[in-house]
Amino acid sequence: MIRRLAVLGVGLIGGSVALALKQAGAVRQVIGYGRDRANLDAARSLGIVDEIADSPEQAVAGADGVLLAMPVGAMAETFVRIAPHLAADALLTDAGSTKQDVIAAARRGLGEQVGRFVPGHPIAGAEKSGALAARADLYAGRNVILTPLPENAAATVAAVADLWRACGARLMEMTAAEHDRVFAAVSHLPHLAAFALVDELASRPQAGLYFRLAGSGFRDFTRIAASSPEMWRDIALANREALAAELDAYVSRLSRLRDALMAGDGQTLFDTFIRASKARGNWAPAGTHLENDE
Amino acid sequence: MIRRLAVLGVGLIGGSVALALKQAGAVRQVIGYGRDRANLDAARSLGIVDEIADSPEQAVAGADGVLLAMPVGAMAETFVRIAPHLAADALLTDAGSTKQDVIAAARRGLGEQVGRFVPGHPIAGAEKSGALAARADLYAGRNVILTPLPENAAATVAAVADLWRACGARLMEMTAAEHDRVFAAVSHLPHLAAFALVDELASRPQAGLYFRLAGSGFRDFTRIAASSPEMWRDIALANREALAAELDAYVSRLSRLRDALMAGDGQTLFDTFIRASKARGNWAPAGTHLENDE
Repeated sequence: MIRRLAVLGVGLIGGSVALALKQAGAVRQVIGYGRDRANLDAARSLGIVDEIADSPEQAVAGADGVLLAMPVGAMAETFVRIAPHLAADALLTDAGSTKQDVIAAARRGLGEQVGRFVPGHPIAGAEKSGALAARADLYAGRNVILTPLPENAAATVAAVADLWRACGARLMEMTAAEHDRVFAAVSHLPHLAAFALVDELASRPQAGLYFRLAGSGFRDFTRIAASSPEMWRDIALANREALAAELDAYVSRLSRLRDALMAGDGQTLFDTFIRASKARGNWAPAGTHLENDE
Repeated sequence: MIRRLAVLGVGLIGGSVALALKQAGAVRQVIGYGRDRANLDAARSLGIVDEIADSPEQAVAGADGVLLAMPVGAMAETFVRIAPHLAADALLTDAGSTKQDVIAAARRGLGEQVGRFVPGHPIAGAEKSGALAARADLYAGRNVILTPLPENAAATVAAVADLWRACGARLMEMTAAEHDRVFAAVSHLPHLAAFALVDELASRPQAGLYFRLAGSGFRDFTRIAASSPEMWRDIALANREALAAELDAYVSRLSRLRDALMAGDGQTLFDTFIRASKARGNWAPAGTHLENDE
């Protein structure tokens, strides 16, 4: 049971965690901080937070639980600011989409207190945003990945896992490096690839015609190209090594398809397409509701 | 008004056109031909076709309207087979996703009769398949593109346009070359790119972990990778020049993003993402129902 939870960044993600923990009776009081005052006021009137803090320092003072749920690019500064104000018994976790850079920022900002921070990544929710989009069941049945640190005591990891479990999530553990490699492939690369296709077409003189004739395949392939540019710039830069490796593998595979195409090699095209079609056809997305993006 | 419409390929597309024309009172009788007898029997019991033909030759004998709605790879042989059996007043159109290769096949197969063939491409329907998926409103409010031939009389083009209009479609005209360039970009490239990503991940030793952690962004980006391998092999080969040019442009843009990434050039990433995000956010897919793929 958390007495007082500080939620730094009360958007879809932070707000949904607060609602879920309240509904589960796993937290007594929530204090929220964020850059957008109107959003914070909405969060308070919706019962997502009980109090609004004027600064991250004020939010964490007296809190025994701290959730960092802002864009990963803003976490480094936050760790530095909150470090001197953390209670001695405070548990920290985050909801960032990349882990190695967040951990590096936590080590720099928290110093010897880093053992209280158990890095997390809940796999849901970025297409809608803001406290108004938050809901208690966002993480029901969804995966939450923890990438514990050597500095974490087992009891600290268990306590943070219990918090996420109280939101209804399924817990997984892996190393931060493995996390970043996997998400470079299944999330960060598709986002870059969707942004790239839309930008390529939008840059052409006949862009209007292209968009007018695009159908449902284009619609779904490019849905994630409407995602937040700031958030995805931060993620791409934070995970640049793994993402560049994925871009290389992808470009190499596209180039092999191009070679097969120009050689009139229908067999290679067919073999590629049928392997993909079977793998995709056999895949059932995790979780019970998937309208939100990771 | 068509007295007798021959539908060659009674799947989602051919079946939906037959149902729409019947509902509009634009056709008196429909005769169907296809490779799958069980599918044809289903089409007859659903009232999609009134008669079943044993061959394309038999289907077109006495028909004043002919719709080719089979995979584009099968059209060349069909034109050759039906040419000697066409009625003197027969109008022909097709529903193929590529146009230059279909036109070349029509010229070879139909010879001097090619003036009766007005090439078409209705923008809807390939993810579900078979007569059971057909419905009268599939083309309501959807775009149908005609790429008329120099050999077409204006009255022939107008008559074929009226047929598609009777299905509820919105008509557009463009050249076959322009059609193939545009669809290489907005449809054929996304399909190849989705097949390539899924095949790349499925080929890895850790494929199971990747698929387990993939979320809704991956789900939508790769939905079209579950499409028919045969159909997309045919389309890719039929439109190989335009598709290779699109692959080159796409790979070049991905490479520029990779360079920006490794240079830590957040501004270029942000500029690309925000242009794409705005273009995608402003785009409203054409048509009233888009659950089917083009």
